[in-house]
Amino acid sequence: MRMAELAQCSGVSVATLKYYLREGLLPAGQAQSATRAAYSEEHLARVRLIRAMVEGAGMSIAGVRRVVSALDNPPSSRHELLGVAHHALPSPNADHPVSAEVSELVAALGWQVSPGAPALRSLSAAVETARSAGVPLGTESLVGYARASERIATVDVAGVPLGDASAALTRVVVGTVLVDPVLAALRRLAQEHTSSAHTGR
Amino acid sequence: MRMAELAQCSGVSVATLKYYLREGLLPAGQAQSATRAAYSEEHLARVRLIRAMVEGAGMSIAGVRRVVSALDNPPSSRHELLGVAHHALPSPNADHPVSAEVSELVAALGWQVSPGAPALRSLSAAVETARSAGVPLGTESLVGYARASERIATVDVAGVPLGDASAALTRVVVGTVLVDPVLAALRRLAQEHTSSAHTGR
Repeated sequence: MRMAELAQCSGVSVATLKYYLREGLLPAGQAQSATRAAYSEEHLARVRLIRAMVEGAGMSIAGVRRVVSALDNPPSSRHELLGVAHHALPSPNADHPVSAEVSELVAALGWQVSPGAPALRSLSAAVETARSAGVPLGTESLVGYARASERIATVDVAGVPLGDASAALTRVVVGTVLVDPVLAALRRLAQEHTSSAHTGR
Repeated sequence: MRMAELAQCSGVSVATLKYYLREGLLPAGQAQSATRAAYSEEHLARVRLIRAMVEGAGMSIAGVRRVVSALDNPPSSRHELLGVAHHALPSPNADHPVSAEVSELVAALGWQVSPGAPALRSLSAAVETARSAGVPLGTESLVGYARASERIATVDVAGVPLGDASAALTRVVVGTVLVDPVLAALRRLAQEHTSSAHTGR
């Protein structure tokens, strides 16, 4: 298909497609002449993925570029792939030091995670921010949240397709980022239900 | 204390404090003269809360204003208070219609939630966005996420102080918003652990 059709099918403007091409997020089409190129279904899938990451997940162009380059050269194991995906994901406060409390929590939970996992830094920063705003996150609460997170992760990991590394990476990145808002909404509904069930008013 | 001291203690600049005053987020201090006012510990607590909502939680000024006005006139029951808090929280896609699927899911879960809950709309939009990006969220996955969310909500609701409605409202709003990043980080770590435990590589 030509660029105009790619724009129509993906719902992304021609100007934005050209931007994706310039940024190296979208591979060039097959040249037909000096001013024309043909785009395939794979280009369309890539544009939809980029759009989901940028608009749906609010990822930066740098983050999208990391995912896209991992897609073009995907790692072989599911575990390694998760590492690549997590490093590509937007990580708030990725320069925050890992707190002793978070290291101890992870050890107490028996979790096997790489010491360089960006989420260790994000978690340290998030706990500190919440606490400085008056939300007392004790060990009991954090362990409760962590056990619930294990159940979420079990659902997440079960959904990652085996075999096709590119599909798996897409699923992890997009699934992790785009399911966060699903979980945030479910949490609010569960709060309302739990509060109504517990207090009866 | 004077405004300069309020700025120093809270870490918020005088210019920003004046902005909070103009926006009606921070009550005026006790006038000492035409150009001087005195601020109390309550002002300091309010500034810290506003800062946590704006910077820590990324809330809009309109959202902060809703919380602050609810704080000045807090509802009496914990359940009602949750409703106020949830309406004040940032709700992505709050104009999205509630999907039949989400209504059926909530009914199947046996959750008691108000039909006007903004999270029903956010959830409908988030499920649609994830799916259009190729993340197939089936009923089984959604129920799995919902059950995990119930465990999270139990920890959340247990942390809400009873008796003092103002403290409870603060806790719900700040706790809900500021614990979201804690949960997002825990989810990523749990994914890594679960993946390593399941695949052994």
